[in-house]
Amino acid sequence: MADIPARTEIGVTTGPIRGSRKIHVGPLKVAMREITLEPGSGEAPVRVYDTSGPYTDPAAQIDIRAGLPTLRRDWIIGRGDVEEYDARAVKPEDNGFLAGSRLDRTAQAAAQGGNKGSGVAQFPLGARRPLRAKPGANVSQMHYARRGIITPEMEYVAERENLGRARLAEYVRDGQDWGAEIPDYVTPEFVRDEVARGRAIIPSNINHPESEPMAIGRNFLVKINANIGNSAVASDVAAEVDKLVWSIRWGADTVMDLSTGRNIHDTREWIIRNSPVPIGTVPIYQALEKVGGVAEDLTWEIFRDTLIEQAEHGVDYFTIHAGVRLAYIPMTAKRVTGIVSRGGSIMAKWCLSHHKESFLYEHFDEITEICKAYDIAYSLGDGLRPGSIADANDEAQFSELYTLGELTKRAWAQDVQVMIEGPGHVPMHKIKQNMEKQLEACGEAPFYTLGPLTTDIAPGYDHITSGIGAAMIGWYGTAMLCYVTPKEHLGLPDRDDVKVGVVTYKLAAHAADLAKGHPAAQVRDDALSRARFDFRWRDQFNLSLDPDTAEQYHDQTLPAEGAKSAHFCSMCGPKFCSMKITQEVRDFAAKQNQPATAFIAAEEAERGMAQMSAVFRETGSELYMGAGDRERD
Amino acid sequence: MADIPARTEIGVTTGPIRGSRKIHVGPLKVAMREITLEPGSGEAPVRVYDTSGPYTDPAAQIDIRAGLPTLRRDWIIGRGDVEEYDARAVKPEDNGFLAGSRLDRTAQAAAQGGNKGSGVAQFPLGARRPLRAKPGANVSQMHYARRGIITPEMEYVAERENLGRARLAEYVRDGQDWGAEIPDYVTPEFVRDEVARGRAIIPSNINHPESEPMAIGRNFLVKINANIGNSAVASDVAAEVDKLVWSIRWGADTVMDLSTGRNIHDTREWIIRNSPVPIGTVPIYQALEKVGGVAEDLTWEIFRDTLIEQAEHGVDYFTIHAGVRLAYIPMTAKRVTGIVSRGGSIMAKWCLSHHKESFLYEHFDEITEICKAYDIAYSLGDGLRPGSIADANDEAQFSELYTLGELTKRAWAQDVQVMIEGPGHVPMHKIKQNMEKQLEACGEAPFYTLGPLTTDIAPGYDHITSGIGAAMIGWYGTAMLCYVTPKEHLGLPDRDDVKVGVVTYKLAAHAADLAKGHPAAQVRDDALSRARFDFRWRDQFNLSLDPDTAEQYHDQTLPAEGAKSAHFCSMCGPKFCSMKITQEVRDFAAKQNQPATAFIAAEEAERGMAQMSAVFRETGSELYMGAGDRERD
Repeated sequence: MADIPARTEIGVTTGPIRGSRKIHVGPLKVAMREITLEPGSGEAPVRVYDTSGPYTDPAAQIDIRAGLPTLRRDWIIGRGDVEEYDARAVKPEDNGFLAGSRLDRTAQAAAQGGNKGSGVAQFPLGARRPLRAKPGANVSQMHYARRGIITPEMEYVAERENLGRARLAEYVRDGQDWGAEIPDYVTPEFVRDEVARGRAIIPSNINHPESEPMAIGRNFLVKINANIGNSAVASDVAAEVDKLVWSIRWGADTVMDLSTGRNIHDTREWIIRNSPVPIGTVPIYQALEKVGGVAEDLTWEIFRDTLIEQAEHGVDYFTIHAGVRLAYIPMTAKRVTGIVSRGGSIMAKWCLSHHKESFLYEHFDEITEICKAYDIAYSLGDGLRPGSIADANDEAQFSELYTLGELTKRAWAQDVQVMIEGPGHVPMHKIKQNMEKQLEACGEAPFYTLGPLTTDIAPGYDHITSGIGAAMIGWYGTAMLCYVTPKEHLGLPDRDDVKVGVVTYKLAAHAADLAKGHPAAQVRDDALSRARFDFRWRDQFNLSLDPDTAEQYHDQTLPAEGAKSAHFCSMCGPKFCSMKITQEVRDFAAKQNQPATAFIAAEEAERGMAQMSAVFRETGSELYMGAGDRERD
Repeated sequence: MADIPARTEIGVTTGPIRGSRKIHVGPLKVAMREITLEPGSGEAPVRVYDTSGPYTDPAAQIDIRAGLPTLRRDWIIGRGDVEEYDARAVKPEDNGFLAGSRLDRTAQAAAQGGNKGSGVAQFPLGARRPLRAKPGANVSQMHYARRGIITPEMEYVAERENLGRARLAEYVRDGQDWGAEIPDYVTPEFVRDEVARGRAIIPSNINHPESEPMAIGRNFLVKINANIGNSAVASDVAAEVDKLVWSIRWGADTVMDLSTGRNIHDTREWIIRNSPVPIGTVPIYQALEKVGGVAEDLTWEIFRDTLIEQAEHGVDYFTIHAGVRLAYIPMTAKRVTGIVSRGGSIMAKWCLSHHKESFLYEHFDEITEICKAYDIAYSLGDGLRPGSIADANDEAQFSELYTLGELTKRAWAQDVQVMIEGPGHVPMHKIKQNMEKQLEACGEAPFYTLGPLTTDIAPGYDHITSGIGAAMIGWYGTAMLCYVTPKEHLGLPDRDDVKVGVVTYKLAAHAADLAKGHPAAQVRDDALSRARFDFRWRDQFNLSLDPDTAEQYHDQTLPAEGAKSAHFCSMCGPKFCSMKITQEVRDFAAKQNQPATAFIAAEEAERGMAQMSAVFRETGSELYMGAGDRERD
């Protein structure tokens, strides 16, 4: 009975998530998802945060060759501080096809074959002209915020973050937020203030008007990032755009395009034009391809040109490993796993070869100038993060972190938005120190961590070893969690791995929101718990992070359609049922001092049980005759 | 190239775990697993804790119709305090076949068909006579410990827990143990003292001499439990014994047989006779079957008879929900999910029906008399544990916990071993309070928790929502973690679910050991991290908790056999490699103040890279030409 979502001609998944409908709230028509519950349940629909964009809206026309509607374009133009200009000309090396002596055989073959074999074609948007800030202008959300301006982006974020808060009155605030300042209700002014203080960012390149504004900050819902990207092996536009759409369907708040090899430029344009979520990149990856993979041949000029190229595409945040300073590199010599960040090791190689300070560090203020002309946020990379339990929280890692703090202040001096990347591999007892030092060193700029993995002994299960660390550091205050898939350390994730990674991180982020006492979080848990207790199976599936898997697992034990409305589960069966007994407890309590409604509920439950029991007796099913425990114990 | 383990004629998996061999250490021949690493690596073999019993020993003859060797029988007999006697006669209702008016059609059909259809037959061990304590004797490990006697069981545990501790000198103790007292080295005297103080238990029914002694306690390695058990639907001996063997292969330290429905008695005997790990049960489940599933018809006499029946089989610990007192039941009336423990709701139903105090509470000291005659440990059940985030840490839960503390002291007064069961569903910020209250209420008796799940919104992924809580509460001091499978709340786990549940909990327990600073824990992480850094792929697989899955995932990206010895991975390829750069960093650091060995290592790495690069150029593989990041960032 699973609804099979439609897929467009070239392969992205569309159609509503099971049991949900897309709604658009308020004057800005903020997209949300509403889960409708069984009519007889007396339960209100549950609104949940929705990252999936128009792809889950049956009313939307999806054509990945046209890209998404440009939601923000009028807002951007309306501010009067941008200008259109002729884009930088695309060069062969932008797509990894090198010229002259560096044109290797593989590249030659690809070049001769044109784009046929690779499946990549230029994005068909004719002569799109990029935007940039007018001379002297600064178009960053932080700049507006500091001048007291509430942008539509900030209003959108406020509406979006308020899911469920209308219900706040039902709840006592319950949580330990470790000094965060989560409001009962998010106002646009609160968003503006958080952005102005640097405690939150709204990644929103003016050349990515397709994005639906979102905030990353300790006082907002915890966000997650999914990494995608083509490899040199076998990828085409459809595969990468499909992975993008697939990852946001399950809840990725931002996506990083970590493509390497060929067709980086074209692939990125396809991704951005079709992405309703902010897109991040690591520009040094592309720059390295442009110099044939020889790190020491990198120059500031090539790197700068790459930044402009990506800025014009609409990249919303750049990972910049400017904290890998020459002096810190020898600190990694005694590590068990040295430098494991690719960007970090590229820069270490460059610094060692030239025995010079990193050009990223030296030219940091110039990079900031570019960022403010397009509103690109920094994601300051932790190139010296630990790659193993043994190396966690060491001198190299924290030295770099303090440099990232220095760079944060330099970026803020130009009103450029900043977040800070964090580890990696950290045993549980050392996780909190990472958050504390980051808050101290980086002036409360949002923290964005990769896991961390809490043990190294479970390759194949590192979505879980890291999901543990992610939930904990999210609770302590990390604003965004970069997912890890089951293939981490072993190979390249496929579509299934992407989904498992996203759902795992979504549940970790939600566990963190709950523990912080976020007023929008527990609504969904409670709705699902009530559905579970009332044996509203469909509601239980639909309220879950992955309704398809929940239903599939249920059907493996109880495939009959009638079992979905059965007032008992496969564990106890109708003969004995924990839920029924609780109804009797309520009945008992009610006799003493409660109103009569509890009696009615108990009687209804009794009637429902008797009916279902009769049905299954008639059909000769033995399945329901006591097969364990609702929760086995 | 995967080694396919042998399976015996009726279906249990045998044969070594990949890359490992079984060893037997010391005069007691304590079973351990040794992972041999690549000869050229200069790495010593890594010994790991081994729960798999003779099934992974190629030298062992496995015949599940004969059961395992009776390792402990001579020790038990040698103490001179037990006697053989004629077992209680098996009754039809022991296997769920009720007599007279209660014989329903299903049971009748089963009875008429004999055991053919069900696949269950009596365990073929002729006239096995059970043991019990001689009149006046107490055969519990706690009793011996309190009299200053170090039993072979205690010696075995000491040897077993010391994995890797010979290497302690390599490590600085690093961890936060929240007040535990983990020794650098475990001596038999330490084990005796922990058992005497009630801080650890060694579940070891004298009628389960096949078990390999193990300890559950805060100052030992964190243990995990897997639940198995037949259901009324479709199960046979082979399936249940196979699940047992399968779960211990992947690391289950104890197994609970939660069978319900038919053939409970026979299935349990098959399981125990073939189990090298302690077996726990919830006797009220079987007692309920004996009264046709009508909770109010339960009596102390039927329950007592069931305890004797199970004691004679060799059950090592009993879950007893004696803390569900009449007065606490109304406290659950206002909960979102009432009473979710099956045992708890059975007792609540009984108490309400009779409006009497629980017969388990009333007869607790008599149950203790039985326990001490067979050395059965209590696992005091938390029948009022929360079933949802909303209900965590409430009055009902903690009221019961304090009663469990009272019962602990009553059991200890008779020198009977006790552990305490805990939740369930708890948001992260409320987990620590559970541990603190348990330590306070129950005098440091070992805590044994189910997860806890840290959010309710991810059915299908509850091994992960609960793995997060399990790792945390394990760190805080919980001694054993009861696994949760992906099917929790949805259906009955199959073989694959059992494996995923066990591996998830094994990694959670290990993450807890690491964070506590257990001196035997980090050895394996470091060995695996070095293997990862050195691109010793086979060592990386073999050191992992699940070598089969790790290799399978690797092969999906790099199937070539040669890739297993490649000095680079699918992420960076040979052209650019983080590891190579770290070698250069070491080289650089070495030039300044290090001995020449670093140079040699760097040169060797360089040579290996060049060789492999050549190989792949020749085979025309494009795969290695820069496909991302070793750790994508």
